[in-house]
Amino acid sequence: MPLNKQLVMHIKVTVITIGDEILIGQTIDTNSSWIGRQFTAMGVRVNEIITCGDNAAQIKDALDRAKARSQIILITGGLGPTKDDVTKNTLVEYFNTELVLNEEVWERMKQYFEKYGKPVLEMNRSQAMIPKDAIMLPNMRGTAQGTWFERDGAVFVSMPGVPHEMKHLMETQVLPRLKKRFSFPKIVQAVLMTSGAGESYIANKLSTFEEQLPSHIKLAYLPELGVLKLRLTANGEGEEIITEVGKQKEELKRILTHYVYAEGEEKLEVHIGKLLLEEKATLSCAESCTGGYISHLLTSVAGSSAYFEGSVISYSYDIKQKLLGVNPNTLNSVGAVSKECVEEMLHGLLQATGTTYGIAVSGIAGPSGATPDKPVGTVWIAVGTKNKILAKSFHFFPTRMENIQVFSNAALNMLRLFIAEGN
Amino acid sequence: MPLNKQLVMHIKVTVITIGDEILIGQTIDTNSSWIGRQFTAMGVRVNEIITCGDNAAQIKDALDRAKARSQIILITGGLGPTKDDVTKNTLVEYFNTELVLNEEVWERMKQYFEKYGKPVLEMNRSQAMIPKDAIMLPNMRGTAQGTWFERDGAVFVSMPGVPHEMKHLMETQVLPRLKKRFSFPKIVQAVLMTSGAGESYIANKLSTFEEQLPSHIKLAYLPELGVLKLRLTANGEGEEIITEVGKQKEELKRILTHYVYAEGEEKLEVHIGKLLLEEKATLSCAESCTGGYISHLLTSVAGSSAYFEGSVISYSYDIKQKLLGVNPNTLNSVGAVSKECVEEMLHGLLQATGTTYGIAVSGIAGPSGATPDKPVGTVWIAVGTKNKILAKSFHFFPTRMENIQVFSNAALNMLRLFIAEGN
Repeated sequence: MPLNKQLVMHIKVTVITIGDEILIGQTIDTNSSWIGRQFTAMGVRVNEIITCGDNAAQIKDALDRAKARSQIILITGGLGPTKDDVTKNTLVEYFNTELVLNEEVWERMKQYFEKYGKPVLEMNRSQAMIPKDAIMLPNMRGTAQGTWFERDGAVFVSMPGVPHEMKHLMETQVLPRLKKRFSFPKIVQAVLMTSGAGESYIANKLSTFEEQLPSHIKLAYLPELGVLKLRLTANGEGEEIITEVGKQKEELKRILTHYVYAEGEEKLEVHIGKLLLEEKATLSCAESCTGGYISHLLTSVAGSSAYFEGSVISYSYDIKQKLLGVNPNTLNSVGAVSKECVEEMLHGLLQATGTTYGIAVSGIAGPSGATPDKPVGTVWIAVGTKNKILAKSFHFFPTRMENIQVFSNAALNMLRLFIAEGN
Repeated sequence: MPLNKQLVMHIKVTVITIGDEILIGQTIDTNSSWIGRQFTAMGVRVNEIITCGDNAAQIKDALDRAKARSQIILITGGLGPTKDDVTKNTLVEYFNTELVLNEEVWERMKQYFEKYGKPVLEMNRSQAMIPKDAIMLPNMRGTAQGTWFERDGAVFVSMPGVPHEMKHLMETQVLPRLKKRFSFPKIVQAVLMTSGAGESYIANKLSTFEEQLPSHIKLAYLPELGVLKLRLTANGEGEEIITEVGKQKEELKRILTHYVYAEGEEKLEVHIGKLLLEEKATLSCAESCTGGYISHLLTSVAGSSAYFEGSVISYSYDIKQKLLGVNPNTLNSVGAVSKECVEEMLHGLLQATGTTYGIAVSGIAGPSGATPDKPVGTVWIAVGTKNKILAKSFHFFPTRMENIQVFSNAALNMLRLFIAEGN
């Protein structure tokens, strides 16, 4: 442990996000959520998030509040020429310092502009000006650098608001430096990803487990649409506690059987990708009510072209017949939201695409389209291969966008179980 | 104007979002963004957003800050049995009042449980307890009611954190009451939606327009991925100012010609839907790199089944050939990201689906897949009918998810222009 490492009993973190665009509702702040997850994984909780405008007085007011309540203050946004570098200039005033040209940054910028054959402007030179007594945190993804100030035992870090630039700086600079600078609590965490059962069902199944859980280990339920994350957190460090958490995790897996699909953070679409890669198998989808969302989830994973071949979005009866060969009698007798229809969709899909596995979904996302026996939220899902098809129906939430998301995850989960059972 | 209407020169609004799940990064706060948009439309800007945990001390600390800086304090979250109604109980303490059973709420709850044949629990009774000197704002979408306190000229409103319940309360109760209670600034706004050109290109085209713009009218640029919203805001009220803003808006439309696609807030996929409905035309898509996202955008609009028939997601060469009839020679010679390929995709799509219009997209979303002459962000888009096809290439951003979004909007915009030109 370095000598200067600061021991704080309860490290407190404030995140300040700066941006008029957030206050007027033009942009949704996703940065503070991402930062929150990083600290949770380190056993520290963000204490407060303050969002203020691109305005020196407001920023100073937020800094005063953060300083009085926390040792780590992370500031995102308010940098760059269109913002007049308001955060940088305010920090210079707030800490009573001045800007000096940073040769390293200036050289990097000149090389960058040279490479792209663009002239270097005066504006760019001002981007290379860094507060005198701050540590410059190099941003290799953009022209606004990070800065690290220390005052009265607290650390103030300013980062650009562009999410991928902020994440790059956090991962390469800020988190490693914070870990050197502060003694973070010793914690051991274990995460299990589950799908296929709701929070209350799982909580009920785990009531005995929770009763026996020692008080220094906590279980958290973290639900998303169609996925439930479980997190065990224990205070302490060393082999003994790691073994203890490991045992509790194994017990959870034993109780929850097939609901658990992964250890550690992992989206269902990423997990499916791994299963398919392992088997050198391929996948295609026939989507009706989900309208392309399952395909979008699958293709949001970089490298998914190795296993995902494509889909047919069969929104109309016509496309169900023309591209998937669904029998018009099926549509007229039992309707598109039926076991028969999704089975025929899947059969037709696998014939057309030739992939190893297929998913077919047809349901009522709402708000219209319901019938007395098929309310909004009804969905039929089929998964399978050319040799075996499994179809099930589900009932979910009452709003359109939630239904599209939860239907999609239910379909991915059905495919996971189908593959896991060796079909 | 009611007699008790409060005249405040600059109304300030603070939003307090309460929830451990936001601080740990489990949930992204979208409520404050939505609230921000409502106030922007009323000529007021949210001053600050504070996010704190489900904890009485933290909530009181946030209330102190908000009270000292604003007249309208909107609080979301921290209600319901799993949160121990921390917000309600904290407000009762903070305002030194007590809870009393609200008969109206209690009756509504009993009827609700009776309807679904469920027993009424003690927990539910506590949900019907409302602070004595607060106005109860009925929540017809859930069991946590809204409450309205007034203290020292400031209004404090507590609402549930579930987005659709919060929006329902804001629209039916909170905003109408605030409009009666405060004199909001008199403003006239006009919004134009544009697509097909970036912010800097549009700003350059508007430099002369901005110079002539009188100082009491402001122009704001509000960019999203692939869409740029322009907003004119004038201080004042009455016929004269409405006419003046209308003239400036017409001038903007004249300068920006076909870049403008709608007046007032409107997503591109909603606009396309209106165009297609008007023509009684239908649409299908052939998506490669966008992986279903265009179809997802189109089908996220309720009622889209009236014009959207379906799509082929042709992620692999194999599906491009099998389902869209793309010539293997095309793929082997010029590749999938080419004019020839998207034209063949579109041709094959329209043959297969028989829709009036079609969109075909093939590009490199990244991070891999780039070649020396086709960097990440390259996309070819074709739109058209069976009689006429238009194809163009574009270069966009360097991250996968941004590319998927911006490619999708570029494709929708091309279709819009194609339809607008009477093809």
